[in-house]
Amino acid sequence: MRRLRLGMVGGGEGAFIGGVHRMAARLDGRWDLVAGNFQSDPERSIAFGKSLGLAPDRAYADFRTMAASEAKRADRIDAVAIVTPNSTHHAIAREFLTAGIPVICDKPMTITRKHADDLASLVASTGLPFILTHNYSGYAMPRQARAMIEAGELGNIRIVQAEYAQDWLATELPGNKQADWRGDPSRAGPGGALGDIATHTFQLAEFVTGLQAESIAADLEVFVPGRKIDDNVNIMLRFNGGAKGMLWASQVATGSVNGLRLRVFGDKGGIEWAQETPETLLFTPLGGQQRIIRRGGAGLSASATHATRIPGGHPEGYLEGFAQIYSDAAELIRAHSERRHPNPFAKLAPGVADGVRGVAFIEAAVASSAANGAWMSL
Amino acid sequence: MRRLRLGMVGGGEGAFIGGVHRMAARLDGRWDLVAGNFQSDPERSIAFGKSLGLAPDRAYADFRTMAASEAKRADRIDAVAIVTPNSTHHAIAREFLTAGIPVICDKPMTITRKHADDLASLVASTGLPFILTHNYSGYAMPRQARAMIEAGELGNIRIVQAEYAQDWLATELPGNKQADWRGDPSRAGPGGALGDIATHTFQLAEFVTGLQAESIAADLEVFVPGRKIDDNVNIMLRFNGGAKGMLWASQVATGSVNGLRLRVFGDKGGIEWAQETPETLLFTPLGGQQRIIRRGGAGLSASATHATRIPGGHPEGYLEGFAQIYSDAAELIRAHSERRHPNPFAKLAPGVADGVRGVAFIEAAVASSAANGAWMSL
Amino acid sequence: MRRLRLGMVGGGEGAFIGGVHRMAARLDGRWDLVAGNFQSDPERSIAFGKSLGLAPDRAYADFRTMAASEAKRADRIDAVAIVTPNSTHHAIAREFLTAGIPVICDKPMTITRKHADDLASLVASTGLPFILTHNYSGYAMPRQARAMIEAGELGNIRIVQAEYAQDWLATELPGNKQADWRGDPSRAGPGGALGDIATHTFQLAEFVTGLQAESIAADLEVFVPGRKIDDNVNIMLRFNGGAKGMLWASQVATGSVNGLRLRVFGDKGGIEWAQETPETLLFTPLGGQQRIIRRGGAGLSASATHATRIPGGHPEGYLEGFAQIYSDAAELIRAHSERRHPNPFAKLAPGVADGVRGVAFIEAAVASSAANGAWMSL
Amino acid sequence: MRRLRLGMVGGGEGAFIGGVHRMAARLDGRWDLVAGNFQSDPERSIAFGKSLGLAPDRAYADFRTMAASEAKRADRIDAVAIVTPNSTHHAIAREFLTAGIPVICDKPMTITRKHADDLASLVASTGLPFILTHNYSGYAMPRQARAMIEAGELGNIRIVQAEYAQDWLATELPGNKQADWRGDPSRAGPGGALGDIATHTFQLAEFVTGLQAESIAADLEVFVPGRKIDDNVNIMLRFNGGAKGMLWASQVATGSVNGLRLRVFGDKGGIEWAQETPETLLFTPLGGQQRIIRRGGAGLSASATHATRIPGGHPEGYLEGFAQIYSDAAELIRAHSERRHPNPFAKLAPGVADGVRGVAFIEAAVASSAANGAWMSL
Repeated sequence: MRRLRLGMVGGGEGAFIGGVHRMAARLDGRWDLVAGNFQSDPERSIAFGKSLGLAPDRAYADFRTMAASEAKRADRIDAVAIVTPNSTHHAIAREFLTAGIPVICDKPMTITRKHADDLASLVASTGLPFILTHNYSGYAMPRQARAMIEAGELGNIRIVQAEYAQDWLATELPGNKQADWRGDPSRAGPGGALGDIATHTFQLAEFVTGLQAESIAADLEVFVPGRKIDDNVNIMLRFNGGAKGMLWASQVATGSVNGLRLRVFGDKGGIEWAQETPETLLFTPLGGQQRIIRRGGAGLSASATHATRIPGGHPEGYLEGFAQIYSDAAELIRAHSERRHPNPFAKLAPGVADGVRGVAFIEAAVASSAANGAWMSL
Repeated sequence: MRRLRLGMVGGGEGAFIGGVHRMAARLDGRWDLVAGNFQSDPERSIAFGKSLGLAPDRAYADFRTMAASEAKRADRIDAVAIVTPNSTHHAIAREFLTAGIPVICDKPMTITRKHADDLASLVASTGLPFILTHNYSGYAMPRQARAMIEAGELGNIRIVQAEYAQDWLATELPGNKQADWRGDPSRAGPGGALGDIATHTFQLAEFVTGLQAESIAADLEVFVPGRKIDDNVNIMLRFNGGAKGMLWASQVATGSVNGLRLRVFGDKGGIEWAQETPETLLFTPLGGQQRIIRRGGAGLSASATHATRIPGGHPEGYLEGFAQIYSDAAELIRAHSERRHPNPFAKLAPGVADGVRGVAFIEAAVASSAANGAWMSL
Repeated sequence: MRRLRLGMVGGGEGAFIGGVHRMAARLDGRWDLVAGNFQSDPERSIAFGKSLGLAPDRAYADFRTMAASEAKRADRIDAVAIVTPNSTHHAIAREFLTAGIPVICDKPMTITRKHADDLASLVASTGLPFILTHNYSGYAMPRQARAMIEAGELGNIRIVQAEYAQDWLATELPGNKQADWRGDPSRAGPGGALGDIATHTFQLAEFVTGLQAESIAADLEVFVPGRKIDDNVNIMLRFNGGAKGMLWASQVATGSVNGLRLRVFGDKGGIEWAQETPETLLFTPLGGQQRIIRRGGAGLSASATHATRIPGGHPEGYLEGFAQIYSDAAELIRAHSERRHPNPFAKLAPGVADGVRGVAFIEAAVASSAANGAWMSL
Repeated sequence: MRRLRLGMVGGGEGAFIGGVHRMAARLDGRWDLVAGNFQSDPERSIAFGKSLGLAPDRAYADFRTMAASEAKRADRIDAVAIVTPNSTHHAIAREFLTAGIPVICDKPMTITRKHADDLASLVASTGLPFILTHNYSGYAMPRQARAMIEAGELGNIRIVQAEYAQDWLATELPGNKQADWRGDPSRAGPGGALGDIATHTFQLAEFVTGLQAESIAADLEVFVPGRKIDDNVNIMLRFNGGAKGMLWASQVATGSVNGLRLRVFGDKGGIEWAQETPETLLFTPLGGQQRIIRRGGAGLSASATHATRIPGGHPEGYLEGFAQIYSDAAELIRAHSERRHPNPFAKLAPGVADGVRGVAFIEAAVASSAANGAWMSL
């Protein structure tokens, strides 16, 4: 089975997430990076592409040329990965979709709801695969949690507690490229921690529970002087079906590293998962003993087994979770080109609908906070 | 040094907290239980008192007789512990204070703000010691956390995340005495989980941080059909000085046992403490390595050392934390009777002001939730 | 039901374990300390007794007078607690047993096998209760583990891994009273860490598994210069029935506090318990999910429930485990005096047979290590 | 920088470790698999190679042909990975080394000391890079531990506690390909758990501490009826410089998954690392607070930073640790071909000397156990 050909926009020197995408794409052996436009500076972009071993004619100076050129090739890329700052996702994705090329896009999908809806329409009309890299839903154990909830093992969901705590923005970071664009509304959009990590948290909560938040009440805060967009997010949520929740996301929570954590409680059981110890899922049936469900261990759903490579006790981590999204994307894209139904578990990869939800969530949170925490529907 | 004499109102057969108070009072060897009115039924109360080894004339049929009789004795009780349902605290405390007897009272102090203010006035006018058993502030490590924050080791506090998750009320519990009165607004007051455990959480947050919540926005929920008062509490908080917080308390969080947890983040450091593993406090200085601060270990404050009995690694638990409140109470009462200043660390025991705050918190949360989460000041 | 009357030998100023015994005896309300000979210096002993509130005629100058005097009183002590350095246990226990008074004795029981056998004979001939405070077997969860193994939930036991790591003797501690006598073979006996903590570990391993070690191979070490007896103990064990084990005990394991840990693996399941987190027991049935069995939680044996005071999630710790031995002792002594069978769970308290095993273990380890690790039978 | 070309011997259908090697080789983008002889059956080997996308002429029917053919090519492989059963390592490695091709070999290196010494001579005489995939020393935190010990942060090492507990062989596994060869002395060599996992444990202990075990006393056991070689390993160790240790390895420890754990205690500090939670290293300086040292966090050595890809909190796991060995191998091989000194951190990759030590360890353990635990020097 041939490897798929990946193109990339963004992810040049100094970038963080581009390198992650490349490792994730390599890990499972389903992708070869063959083309890219890595930086806005044309010369640097070309040089960077060469340093990655790309053929000279596929290290592009700009993304529009890249989309046009690739579309004409017999060995054209099977998908483009978009790993640029948020504000540029829309234009780039539009360009490639229009050129008939499937898209793997970083989150949040766009910085306005209008742009998000536009991409959703385009995906619908072209029928092209569109994968959004909410990578945390690529871990095996959140998929296990989702399967358990779907199977009714938690009963009716009552409570959702979700959080994502970091501290890398606890002070000003002058000159830090990652911090710069994330703190600039013109590139990041209206949300700071909100767009960067609360959207992951929100997506994971909806992904695992199968619920949808109907309305939220938000209290956003900027703690670091001079910062323009939020670095701490407090939100209360009301879900369809009556569940209640809270979501906390912070980039100034001193001592936190990448503390994404989800707890869900139903009338028959409760679960807990933490990204920093991703191999285990705690499950307690009502009135029973707490169980440590382990990747690669006993009692796993087929969907969790699908998202695992090596035996339990040999920890899989962040790159494996991210790689899962790429492997699922490969299957979705391959099935699309072969005009067949994909492996159903590959459909767990987040898509354009998650993107629209995420942008709606950001806008509702900003509006609620501006209205002193009034409930806003999503 | 003679042991102090303790009286008790409440805590008869089938009670939970009364037995805890008795163990806590015994543990440090500063109290002897000598008198009590344990149940509303006079005969049973007397029989229960005898079963505890009380002298027959000090096993009382009702609390008014007890207050009057004890007040006249040369060997009268040094304090009364009130461990009855919430709605009765006010009348009983009033009776003993009026009789000149110091009070150790369970929380929440009263079920109305008016009653709370009345007790506060009475305590002020009589000058008598009044201790409120927010027992979690008796543990060594919250006192360590408080000392560190006071000393500036966390810098300016930005974020407070507090939670208290249980699941013992996840279903209806017909015939369970503990559940019955806690679910009956006429005995428990307007708050369910709110009064029972959110007040502990709130007190601990203010105790540790030294901050005061200025306003809160609440979303209370009743999940179990037929229940009259909340079993799940979502609250956002705004503190003086600009800190923001969230407080979650639930008695239907399936799989949770007694999950009281507090996290505080400042611009110089962050801490985390969980009641179920009370011996350790996690502390991370900004940019540094996380440290496990251990009861009995290195680098402890004098106030934490004050609240410890045995070397580190020999776990102290719930009863020791509760005993600390009793030992502090003993010192406060002894100092009062000896007209001297008490050991300053004994003054960390919660008092009538905590009681007023707790009742104000309950009322604000109920009002906010009734107003669809509007911010209410405290 | 009247409280039993406790006498104490040892445990005066500067002692550690005496205070622990007193707290443990108080906690469950079954004992009153009424008599004692607390120190070798007569005046200090009497002064110390008075400071504890003893009647002046029961604060004794020496233990022989105490035994003789108490034996004559109508309100004589129901038991004596012996909390002196190891070398003196035999003479003191002998004195009180001969006087007809039950004994609660610290471990190791004696410093020679001959003395141990002598006490065993005396206990057999007098029929008096004799309790050895291997306090760790008083915790609820080791009792749960024992019950599970007894019920066959682990199948045939194959592997026993036991350890007890401390670091308080990692350097010389000149002038430390606790370190002084423990490092002096004339008071501590032939074992250092071996007698002080390895005996606890050994007793717990046999208590939980129901197995007996048949032979051991030991490699004892003295790491701190100038120390006369071992501070680190490496032992391999062979049990009846074919199980194999390892036992490590150290008082120089830097960073360890009171790390007693036991793991047992059978052909049907495995368990793990650690004293520093005593509330939970990990259990994994072969091929199944790991379960966290919690004190006060689901699926407990009657023997574990017997050893618990308060609901799960409200941590019980070291003093509660120690108190359990005292409560069991109270029941054994009361049953003896009432000529009835005791509550069967009270018989889980360690006794003179554990004492003999412990001394045999010490002697075998010393002999094996002297013979370069040759296997010695017990 | 061109990717290196990798060949593989072994790792066909049903193999476990071959797939791991391939993922590890891919992850960091330094290797392309271009040639292989994957199974003993020639047709299946060729078919398997094609399924991996190899050119038809480089999917070989046997390893001798492969070595000969590759040696002649201009684009010959830069190294061969040997992932066959233990007994075949020697012949295969010999063949490729003789053909001038560097070797990446699975452990244990050989099944006899004679073979091990032969490979060591051959490596010495050819000067070719030889890397042994003791992959656990590729994790960042063991490298951090090693650097700290080297820098004296633990002082003089006194105690080494090492263990590796699994349970996948707790019962007979008829028909399981992995279990079959590991239980067959003709393919696995004289050690079962001893060769499979105790060697990893031993290598890690020596790697981290920089010490060498001088002698060991072993008690090997076969618990599962019908098994020919050990499934449980108890060993006491004596290191140069006076440190003492214990090593436990088991494949029948029910409930264990892949529990490799190392604890080292010196006179200035102690450390603990567990493979199942590889991101953190616990460190306690004597008398100080315990610290959680985190991959990607504060206070890391350059050698730990060298072995990391992504920021802290984004867990790296087993494949990343394994990939590190491959990346280090790439650097060693590239430096060799470029006749320059390699990056010094790449030299942390285990080599032929580790292989010799491992085989010596196996032989000493088998001999000691046969001599009833007599000390055997290494």
